[in-house]
Amino acid sequence: MKHFITLNDLPNFQKALDLAKSLKESPYSHEDIGKRKTLGLLFFNPSLRTRLSTQKAAQQLGFSTMVMNFSNEAWALEFEDGTQMRGIRSEHIREAAAVVSQYCDMVAIRAFASLTNKKQDEAEIVLKSFAKYAKIPVINMESATGHPLQALADAVTLEEHKKKYRPKVVLTWTPHPKALPHAVANSFTQMMSFQEADYVIANPKGYDLDKNITKNIPVLHNQSEAIQNADFVYAKNWCSYQQYGQILRTDEKWMLTKEKMSLTKNAKFMHCLPIRRNIVASDSVLDNSNSLVIEQANNRTFAAQAVLKILLDHA
Amino acid sequence: MKHFITLNDLPNFQKALDLAKSLKESPYSHEDIGKRKTLGLLFFNPSLRTRLSTQKAAQQLGFSTMVMNFSNEAWALEFEDGTQMRGIRSEHIREAAAVVSQYCDMVAIRAFASLTNKKQDEAEIVLKSFAKYAKIPVINMESATGHPLQALADAVTLEEHKKKYRPKVVLTWTPHPKALPHAVANSFTQMMSFQEADYVIANPKGYDLDKNITKNIPVLHNQSEAIQNADFVYAKNWCSYQQYGQILRTDEKWMLTKEKMSLTKNAKFMHCLPIRRNIVASDSVLDNSNSLVIEQANNRTFAAQAVLKILLDHA
Amino acid sequence: MKHFITLNDLPNFQKALDLAKSLKESPYSHEDIGKRKTLGLLFFNPSLRTRLSTQKAAQQLGFSTMVMNFSNEAWALEFEDGTQMRGIRSEHIREAAAVVSQYCDMVAIRAFASLTNKKQDEAEIVLKSFAKYAKIPVINMESATGHPLQALADAVTLEEHKKKYRPKVVLTWTPHPKALPHAVANSFTQMMSFQEADYVIANPKGYDLDKNITKNIPVLHNQSEAIQNADFVYAKNWCSYQQYGQILRTDEKWMLTKEKMSLTKNAKFMHCLPIRRNIVASDSVLDNSNSLVIEQANNRTFAAQAVLKILLDHA
Repeated sequence: MKHFITLNDLPNFQKALDLAKSLKESPYSHEDIGKRKTLGLLFFNPSLRTRLSTQKAAQQLGFSTMVMNFSNEAWALEFEDGTQMRGIRSEHIREAAAVVSQYCDMVAIRAFASLTNKKQDEAEIVLKSFAKYAKIPVINMESATGHPLQALADAVTLEEHKKKYRPKVVLTWTPHPKALPHAVANSFTQMMSFQEADYVIANPKGYDLDKNITKNIPVLHNQSEAIQNADFVYAKNWCSYQQYGQILRTDEKWMLTKEKMSLTKNAKFMHCLPIRRNIVASDSVLDNSNSLVIEQANNRTFAAQAVLKILLDHA
Repeated sequence: MKHFITLNDLPNFQKALDLAKSLKESPYSHEDIGKRKTLGLLFFNPSLRTRLSTQKAAQQLGFSTMVMNFSNEAWALEFEDGTQMRGIRSEHIREAAAVVSQYCDMVAIRAFASLTNKKQDEAEIVLKSFAKYAKIPVINMESATGHPLQALADAVTLEEHKKKYRPKVVLTWTPHPKALPHAVANSFTQMMSFQEADYVIANPKGYDLDKNITKNIPVLHNQSEAIQNADFVYAKNWCSYQQYGQILRTDEKWMLTKEKMSLTKNAKFMHCLPIRRNIVASDSVLDNSNSLVIEQANNRTFAAQAVLKILLDHA
Repeated sequence: MKHFITLNDLPNFQKALDLAKSLKESPYSHEDIGKRKTLGLLFFNPSLRTRLSTQKAAQQLGFSTMVMNFSNEAWALEFEDGTQMRGIRSEHIREAAAVVSQYCDMVAIRAFASLTNKKQDEAEIVLKSFAKYAKIPVINMESATGHPLQALADAVTLEEHKKKYRPKVVLTWTPHPKALPHAVANSFTQMMSFQEADYVIANPKGYDLDKNITKNIPVLHNQSEAIQNADFVYAKNWCSYQQYGQILRTDEKWMLTKEKMSLTKNAKFMHCLPIRRNIVASDSVLDNSNSLVIEQANNRTFAAQAVLKILLDHA
């Protein structure tokens, strides 16, 4: 693969998953393949897990890493073509991407959705511009519409904890005080297409995800009904996609509680973190031994390590 | 030891001191013990010496390091239990600490006192929450009430420069335009309990430190009297402890000058830095050959190296 | 050399240039000379190329690197002597520089011109104070009046692309909406004194550079006339030097366009980046195969690597 922008870029999903699992078994089994190579990590937004796990993954393969927060350390970037750059943006992506390509062997980028301009967000202007003008592989560390490193890690976690060939997996919308992007929900859904599972999405009316992504997956507007007999419940908030960027409700009805989880088949609880306690899910859910959220974070390292290795192998 | 929160966590103070001194002699004598290990450095406050010396210490033992400024790079953390996380804090310490434990083998944390809420500061909520929820050793890089890495480095400096078995050491309050924490004064005082010394504290009325720390150490309210015949004068400002967080005076009377230093036994001058010149001490004191401030900073590296090695040895 | 503040610090310009070129051929030919050594990179201003290329250069020589943004991570520095430090500046350069010298083997510093105080800018107070009080080599990563790492990289680029013994090289002022420093123009001009070339500077009236730097170099106030038959056109904006810090015009007349470039001898186009498209130069100039801007950025790594190696050799 040339870049890792979505899960579909992986030459073979199952092989990537197996590689992540084998790297978890033996994280230093390829500790020299990144020798004399540098991974640049560029952040346009905050990060804890993604930043530390991707850096750790790189180090375990022998890469050097250089981290840069574009928002306060570098120059504001212009992404539009043909403009007269009179404003605060003092560097064009064409130069920035080409220049970063001189100093790094790969570059990982985080650039969240604006949630104000649907068309622009869907165009993935930051990530795709980097991919277009960089001469090196570009890795998505969460873009406007996807978070494939999270989804690959989640696939590892699912595989580690599933007890039957075809588990029931439910992605359920949960409340949140802020408007959040669709990236995690999109990539999780995309990832589920590679799985043998009974996959269902639950969200309130007005919160349906992009139909181009959910396709013919059942979408229920009743959470209790949806999670019935679930083996895995993946909680996540997102803002409205139709009324793009809007928060339509903030009541507690869709919060996951111990009571709600009792409707499931003793389901494992998943979330990508950070999570707002007692808003998205109650303490009783998060502190329960069925919660996989910390293991999900752990698997981020090996998902990133697998992607780095695959990119090197295809270089 | 499990964590390094205070000097009392050291299994043996004298051995730690000897180790720091021997690492200063030969900084690369254990340059592989941190191989394949990662030290995370998390900052909630500014840092120059602590950040660079702790990073250097880690590198000299072969550790990889990952530095993160929580204030502007990651998510705002919630430390209270049971709350509904509706506000700006989007991640709970329970998850943050557990997650960092997945990517690091040890984590060093700087989190200053608020100086507005005595009870909360004394509870050391940031550091102790990390220690509680992290599954890896936590290192104090200055917390609300202590700065043990500084104190251990100061012990090295004292030992290098003392000319008699039982020197007179004076910790004296000095003026400062801002309200500063008690952390350095507390840890220095705690460290002195491991020393053969005639130890005296001098501060204006209203500035007495926490009695649980100073115990039966003589506290004088007359600086000139206190520093009489001193072999070492350690200058430091702190705000009022009784009238918690208050600045009671900013006059120059307690500034250390060449004249005042002449009352001592040609005493060495110490300060943890950063220091405000001609407020805390005059140029003539700082630029005098009796000033040890730069050597104190140098010894920070070896104190940190000793702590890292002891934590590894006890892992 | 003791420090690398200006190109004149290089013991031999031509040897430095040859070294940079040979390191470009073989970047890992000295990958152990920085072993057990640390380069500190201190930024008082934003940086993309300089930060990544200098870090990369250090890593290719085996150095460890520690990056610090002074503006938001450390303490505000005081540079004036003898002041009472009552304000927001909580650490004096005397201590900061001496302390950094304890943790690093070399330190590279970026500190732009204020453009409000000519005398202070020309005194290079930040960089020169570090050089004065640090006990280790100081490297200029762009100071108030010079950017010698850029100029050395530009020399490499010129040498790689020149087709005759004595090319015509034109440095031309171009428009810009913000007041920019003279550092790049100064160092480029200084660098050209080491070259066999027909060197000409073009700028509007009121924009003449410091006569102490341009000396007897022809300065034309007509751009079209100046670039006639040029082999290289180096574009750069700077604010007025006489009316220090002022922007005297922002019209498009001095923007470089395809039409203007047709007056040259099929000249190569150079710029240090970041560049504002369609303000400094048109898209047609930047996207033309004659543009060397990305290769200039590439050569930054090898210029920095050469400087680091020379400093090590002279240590």
